[in-house]
Amino acid sequence: MPEIARHTLPARRGKAVAVNAGESIRIINTHGTQVVDFWAYVAGHMGEFIGVEQCRATWTRLYPKTGDALYTNRRRALMTLVEDTSPGRHDTVIAPCDNERYGLLGCTTYHDNCKDNHHAGLLELGLSVPFTPGSINLFMNIPWDAEGNLQFAPALSKPGDYVTLRAEIDCIAVMSACPQDILKINSQKPVEAHYEILPA
Amino acid sequence: MPEIARHTLPARRGKAVAVNAGESIRIINTHGTQVVDFWAYVAGHMGEFIGVEQCRATWTRLYPKTGDALYTNRRRALMTLVEDTSPGRHDTVIAPCDNERYGLLGCTTYHDNCKDNHHAGLLELGLSVPFTPGSINLFMNIPWDAEGNLQFAPALSKPGDYVTLRAEIDCIAVMSACPQDILKINSQKPVEAHYEILPA
Repeated sequence: MPEIARHTLPARRGKAVAVNAGESIRIINTHGTQVVDFWAYVAGHMGEFIGVEQCRATWTRLYPKTGDALYTNRRRALMTLVEDTSPGRHDTVIAPCDNERYGLLGCTTYHDNCKDNHHAGLLELGLSVPFTPGSINLFMNIPWDAEGNLQFAPALSKPGDYVTLRAEIDCIAVMSACPQDILKINSQKPVEAHYEILPA
Repeated sequence: MPEIARHTLPARRGKAVAVNAGESIRIINTHGTQVVDFWAYVAGHMGEFIGVEQCRATWTRLYPKTGDALYTNRRRALMTLVEDTSPGRHDTVIAPCDNERYGLLGCTTYHDNCKDNHHAGLLELGLSVPFTPGSINLFMNIPWDAEGNLQFAPALSKPGDYVTLRAEIDCIAVMSACPQDILKINSQKPVEAHYEILPA
């Protein structure tokens, strides 16, 4: 069996990678504290992508659990969450950060952000989209209460926790190591994460 | 003072309408049981629209309350929820229904749906977009629990309840009287709603 290469998702940066049907991508929270924003598109058809609002309607839940499919905006199962060693708290309700968001948080100069990382990652593959879909924010801990109030809290994962997502259809996966260093979601210290592509 | 015209949003249909900065749109749940999916775009710049995931990040809440702005995907306040006579339960986490959704619910022929209503409403104004943003589902009652599980429940509104949304920037508002007749959100009887454009 060939050794599986472990790739670095650098701190504050994004990366896009093809994952063919049957293959899986394992996303590793190397330090335990790092949120990874995640998107996936149908390969060759960038108008179809994981739709978090479509996922929630089918899950009838705010976040995915092991065994759940990740559905597209056409309601097709694009990937399946087949393994999750973390406490299973992933966010689907908060937008990927963008430069405007950091402006509202007090930044006066450009701040690295998941939205631009998403587009930069796609561009490295020669791909682009004219919008930014909602992301699945892996390991991001956004507790809600009975009144629907939300908090931005540190990740609950331990170092080395990972999720494994199997592609059901050839897809382009996009990851961003979230550069958020003002709110507490990355313990205010954005770091690198890692990923592996597992064979079918 | 000129009389304010009350327009019908027909059962199972959509409508788009320009609302200029300072004007408001009042959306009336005439029968109390009807969900109205809602979107708004910056007039002349259809790439900027209300982003429910950006709204939730700034609200730090799953749904809007009176006084909240509705923020765009560029984090600008496009409209403000200035009045709400309903119990205030509006959904932002469930996707607008589409024909594929009805297929998953057992329909074998075309079913009216909010996604197509959204695009048909825009087309009547000569406008189109290559995607369907997440909607604010006015009067839609999707209770959540401590574990993040969601339910599709009947609206809590009484006949005549309304919300008033003031435009902060010239915008194109889009509404769909949700045709969902399988789940309970419209008490399984989709009906018409009404709307008014109020002067600045």
